[in-house]
Amino acid sequence: MNVEKIILGIDPGTNLMGYGVLRVVGQKAQAEALGVIDLRKFGDGYLKLGHIYERVGGIIESYLPDELAIEAPFFGKNVQSMLKLGRAQGVAIAAAIRHDVPIHEYAPMKIKMALTGNGGASKEQVAGMLQRILHLDEEQMKQHFDATDALAAAYCHFMQSSRPQSQAGYRSWKDFALKNKERIKN
Amino acid sequence: MNVEKIILGIDPGTNLMGYGVLRVVGQKAQAEALGVIDLRKFGDGYLKLGHIYERVGGIIESYLPDELAIEAPFFGKNVQSMLKLGRAQGVAIAAAIRHDVPIHEYAPMKIKMALTGNGGASKEQVAGMLQRILHLDEEQMKQHFDATDALAAAYCHFMQSSRPQSQAGYRSWKDFALKNKERIKN
Repeated sequence: MNVEKIILGIDPGTNLMGYGVLRVVGQKAQAEALGVIDLRKFGDGYLKLGHIYERVGGIIESYLPDELAIEAPFFGKNVQSMLKLGRAQGVAIAAAIRHDVPIHEYAPMKIKMALTGNGGASKEQVAGMLQRILHLDEEQMKQHFDATDALAAAYCHFMQSSRPQSQAGYRSWKDFALKNKERIKN
Repeated sequence: MNVEKIILGIDPGTNLMGYGVLRVVGQKAQAEALGVIDLRKFGDGYLKLGHIYERVGGIIESYLPDELAIEAPFFGKNVQSMLKLGRAQGVAIAAAIRHDVPIHEYAPMKIKMALTGNGGASKEQVAGMLQRILHLDEEQMKQHFDATDALAAAYCHFMQSSRPQSQAGYRSWKDFALKNKERIKN
């Protein structure tokens, strides 16, 4: 029997937040959906965060992902932009926590490496590789790079988790907490 | 008739997250509760964020605050710590958004200024002033400074919102969005 799994990829930005949904059946993956959450019309930080929370929650409720793969850069230009990015990430993460979806984080370089074999690949190269692997149609290729980047995060997680030597994975957030007791200090 | 209002103050940190609950009746305020959410035992970032989300949500469900006042520094030592702080803030903010609680943000200097008249006041001075104004008992004064700092944020918001020239306030998150349409760019 082929186990089916849905992976939601998110590329969290403060202006555009990309998302991509990958359906995995056995060893095969296909793109279910991709798009961006446009945050540019919200001038106020809290309205923006509220919109992220509602939209990410809505996407999770629509596609019921088993896991969330998030593209997460650890370094940025300045402290101010990193605080804003951290907040946007935090709100998206909270939406996943609320729906009991385990979270996996990948650095941009790792995602590029997994997709193209080159950690310094351009967004165009990543999108082009996704098009070939997942047979994205023209409509899907018209999306912002934030959307293809998010799908790339999902695909990177698919590759990581389908490796034989990888961990069994977590069924839920609580399962993750349960299996990672040693990461809770006493 | 005296209108009663509950203000929840939060001082979001990545090791200790302080909270303080202020009950306002007419022009008088009293401390309802204060404490800290201890995050030090969670080694893993996501377990930490999950715990913040659950605890802040629990505090909101217990005290049903009308508004949230959050102490939010805008500058930090380095981008890495600001990303972590932003995530912790984002998760706490999401818990408030989920419960439809409007959020007000105050810089640490502004809170110190509102409490003591000195933007550079020490945490001890802020706690001492709160003790005098709100008649905090010994047990309450034994709490971490993160707890008194959180209560100070709530008190700062009380002072701001009780000013005659201030805005009428918002009944809910949706109300806030509704009354701030001009802050949504078209």
